[in-house]
Amino acid sequence: MIGRLNHVAIAVPDLEAASEQYRTALGAKVNAPQDEPDHGVTVVFIELPNTKIELLYPLGENSPIAGFLEKNPAGGIHHVCYEVDDIIAARDHLKASGLRVLGNGEPKIGAHGKPVLFLHPKDMNGTLVELEQV
Amino acid sequence: MIGRLNHVAIAVPDLEAASEQYRTALGAKVNAPQDEPDHGVTVVFIELPNTKIELLYPLGENSPIAGFLEKNPAGGIHHVCYEVDDIIAARDHLKASGLRVLGNGEPKIGAHGKPVLFLHPKDMNGTLVELEQV
Repeated sequence: MIGRLNHVAIAVPDLEAASEQYRTALGAKVNAPQDEPDHGVTVVFIELPNTKIELLYPLGENSPIAGFLEKNPAGGIHHVCYEVDDIIAARDHLKASGLRVLGNGEPKIGAHGKPVLFLHPKDMNGTLVELEQV
Repeated sequence: MIGRLNHVAIAVPDLEAASEQYRTALGAKVNAPQDEPDHGVTVVFIELPNTKIELLYPLGENSPIAGFLEKNPAGGIHHVCYEVDDIIAARDHLKASGLRVLGNGEPKIGAHGKPVLFLHPKDMNGTLVELEQV
């Protein structure tokens, strides 16, 4: 069911410093920051040949990243995102398998403009998993 | 400099349960467990179309994963691995950029039989980064 790894998201305490580090020290292709006010984050995409790294920084109040950075002031890997063809079919299969979907269980439009869901990390080996319909 | 994302490693408290979950609930291609006594881990590779997920479970005493699972009993994302063409050139460039290489700074042969290095997570936004020469 799951397809490609769409991205790995890393929450960072200093978006400019992290972007510069990936650009110059790691020599990666780093895009310009994008504010995503609907999601409470500013995002920088790093393009690797086979997938993306998504640097996340809090935007506005009640950012979903703020609490994570309080617990992890240096930053840390926040979630992984797997692609699916049909997010409703995926959700129903995962729920039938005993996995909890966060929120009200309905897909939302994610930072890439596509429907996404998150699975409860306690059901997934402590890993926050995003599913994105592509 | 960095190339493909070779894998995302997830430490898990129950390797059989995690493998079964990825196989049946997530419908992924899950390989058989491999003991890596030199690295103190048993590994299960999950093949996605563009990269791999590496499930890690402690093997033997002094496993590098044991402390992580003590702090994170449910499991969690342990590291990401980026591919490089020349690990010595990469190391020298990263050290010149102010990043610390773990251990004695010399590459070791990793779980895939290739030279690897790890960068200090405090220098990398709280993220343990493995570099693998491919």
